[in-house]
Amino acid sequence: MNALKLTVPDGVPFIDYERSFDFPVAEVFRAHAGPELLAQWLGPRGTNVAVEHYDFRTGGSYLYRHTGPDGVTYAFSGVFHTVRENDFAVQTFEFSGYPDVVSMEFLTFEDLGGGRCRLRAHSVYPSQEARDGMAASGMESGLSEGYERLEELLGRHSRAR
Amino acid sequence: MNALKLTVPDGVPFIDYERSFDFPVAEVFRAHAGPELLAQWLGPRGTNVAVEHYDFRTGGSYLYRHTGPDGVTYAFSGVFHTVRENDFAVQTFEFSGYPDVVSMEFLTFEDLGGGRCRLRAHSVYPSQEARDGMAASGMESGLSEGYERLEELLGRHSRAR
Repeated sequence: MNALKLTVPDGVPFIDYERSFDFPVAEVFRAHAGPELLAQWLGPRGTNVAVEHYDFRTGGSYLYRHTGPDGVTYAFSGVFHTVRENDFAVQTFEFSGYPDVVSMEFLTFEDLGGGRCRLRAHSVYPSQEARDGMAASGMESGLSEGYERLEELLGRHSRAR
Repeated sequence: MNALKLTVPDGVPFIDYERSFDFPVAEVFRAHAGPELLAQWLGPRGTNVAVEHYDFRTGGSYLYRHTGPDGVTYAFSGVFHTVRENDFAVQTFEFSGYPDVVSMEFLTFEDLGGGRCRLRAHSVYPSQEARDGMAASGMESGLSEGYERLEELLGRHSRAR
């Protein structure tokens, strides 16, 4: 079972999570690497993702907008401090609902062998309040559904080969 | 007295500091905004700064190298998530001695009126250990000397007008 495991540690402004996939690390990395695939899985079901730009390389930046089933649109933007193929990425993250409350996310892509991989994320917030707000925002179910959609997307691609 | 005030709070991975200047906010901001001025004040006395690139704008990036009096060179690199003139900047920061241990810094430029201003910084580290290591690294004296050099630089510019 590849369920999302999310941890909200006491007293420090972090959120950590991990998720395994029955797909090779290169495929999971590729689903993060460009706007075409990203828009097909990012966010909960029923989300419309419009990617304005998404330049997944060291020194690149991104801006995309989510429109939920309720018709409300939010923007998400940031810069990529590091991107190493099939390995590691560090990016900043800002949500238009909380301007200037920028967080940072470390993503580690790990090859588990046998065509499987694990994604680990360490998110760092600028205050305990910002972390608590994010943890209470429905982040866990949004991520969980997003990664289920990612798995389905990779499954369709695999079958199409 | 415009001395640096630096705070290393217990139990959270932050470092905060502030420094006032007897110069207008636009001048202090300008000293952060381009490589020519930056290289003249960044770091403790006796540091040679070689700026490879420094693009101080939202979505820009930077890389510079410090060579100390001992001849040892370190690289510092990052990306600018936000830059707002005379107001606010958010940037990432990585030191070549600790690869992938990326921190984030929020800089607020505040006009105090009467030709004075205050710079406030909030630094956020990816672990308590990384914060403690940075706090123990001589950061306070390095910052303190750097801002004294900045003040001297602005003084020379003012007198030259």
